[in-house]
Amino acid sequence: MKLYRYKYKGKISYGFLEEEYLRPIEGSIFRSIKPSRRRRVPIGEVLLLPPVKPSKIVAVGVNYRDHALERGRQLPEEPLIFLKPSTAVIGPQDIIIFPKMSRRVDYEGELAFVIKKKTRLLEESADISSHILGYTCFNDVTARDLQERDGQFTRAKSFDTFAALGPCVATDIDPSSLKIKTFLNGKLKQSSNTKNLIFSVPFLLRFISDVMTLNPGDVVTTGTPSGIGPMKPGDRVDVQIEHIGTLSNTVMKIT
Amino acid sequence: MKLYRYKYKGKISYGFLEEEYLRPIEGSIFRSIKPSRRRRVPIGEVLLLPPVKPSKIVAVGVNYRDHALERGRQLPEEPLIFLKPSTAVIGPQDIIIFPKMSRRVDYEGELAFVIKKKTRLLEESADISSHILGYTCFNDVTARDLQERDGQFTRAKSFDTFAALGPCVATDIDPSSLKIKTFLNGKLKQSSNTKNLIFSVPFLLRFISDVMTLNPGDVVTTGTPSGIGPMKPGDRVDVQIEHIGTLSNTVMKIT
Repeated sequence: MKLYRYKYKGKISYGFLEEEYLRPIEGSIFRSIKPSRRRRVPIGEVLLLPPVKPSKIVAVGVNYRDHALERGRQLPEEPLIFLKPSTAVIGPQDIIIFPKMSRRVDYEGELAFVIKKKTRLLEESADISSHILGYTCFNDVTARDLQERDGQFTRAKSFDTFAALGPCVATDIDPSSLKIKTFLNGKLKQSSNTKNLIFSVPFLLRFISDVMTLNPGDVVTTGTPSGIGPMKPGDRVDVQIEHIGTLSNTVMKIT
Repeated sequence: MKLYRYKYKGKISYGFLEEEYLRPIEGSIFRSIKPSRRRRVPIGEVLLLPPVKPSKIVAVGVNYRDHALERGRQLPEEPLIFLKPSTAVIGPQDIIIFPKMSRRVDYEGELAFVIKKKTRLLEESADISSHILGYTCFNDVTARDLQERDGQFTRAKSFDTFAALGPCVATDIDPSSLKIKTFLNGKLKQSSNTKNLIFSVPFLLRFISDVMTLNPGDVVTTGTPSGIGPMKPGDRVDVQIEHIGTLSNTVMKIT
């Protein structure tokens, strides 16, 4: 099921995709998803919003074999995590703002997963799938010059609009072998498969839950494959993942 | 005014200190603080909670001249920021849990400020004081071994219970010259004054607001002076700041 959050006639709703229509649902997406009796809406007529409102985003550094080689690094022995703030989140119809502080802003296409229930210190025997609502596309936008200057990733990755998320949360898909592609102005820039992840989705969930509590709606993004590069104002960037869809955003400079 | 958040007879309230009593208030602490008609409660009879529930905590690396020298570093040209997640927050009567993943967990006593209203891209002419609700003590608990292993600060500083906050938010105080001390089991370990901050409170507010939107209740912590060191299970750590009070927490290992 592809779950969308959207605004239609001033009202924010969740719905799932039925052909070209969104079928509104009742109740919480984190409990049981039931179709409501409200009328279906053509997806072309709504404003798509970020599919969830995370309290935090946990991201992972080098986690694709090809990206590790591209950056001339050894494969890491454990995940390197960092945080992006909730204030950075934008949805599939929002604009990435090129900040004044930076001269180089990069796309990083990633597979992200959404937490379904409060998760902490997961036991070995835990059923991972009951902790994950589903999967989405993520653009871990990064001011590369500030990342290099600071050493720490936080400033470079925390600007408002630097966490693009969507277009939907796809439930019931297997994250272990999904094609992932990033396009800049329609031109293929990143192309890999989640089977190249160094640390798998279940591994990351366990590892992070040993550090911090994850809340329903929190987002964990799994790292980017090789082919990262800069975006300019006016550029359009698409992150496309098999069985999920395409997250498209345009870059703008506000003067 | 010293604002406390507390639980009394199962109910969570805000109140301000009058001698040894908490006077409950009406309305939002971010708008106008009015005493309510409810009865005062002796402060010794309540459970003190973290005085705010931040959506994020923005912290600053080396920001005291003495601490920079202690770590053998040059004074930084701009602040080095990092994030701590909301899930790490504990209050003045909570326990710091020593995580299994680490062998060395340090205290870092700091002055923190609390955001009063949505703050983004502050103009030079903006009235800083209208954006800050007040000041509190902060213990930026850090797994030093993991900080060194990762290079990135996130894992080391994001464990649940690693952001101790309180005991109150002191409004109407001048942050530019406050004595700050940290005690381990009653023994003085850190002693400085906020006049030794490399980047002042107004500077940090402007700098961070150029990167990300700050929400009401968000916490910015301003860095630690020299004298950081390890804590062991059973230890008690007190962060004491002039005109605010003392934040005391005990460390425990859960096996």
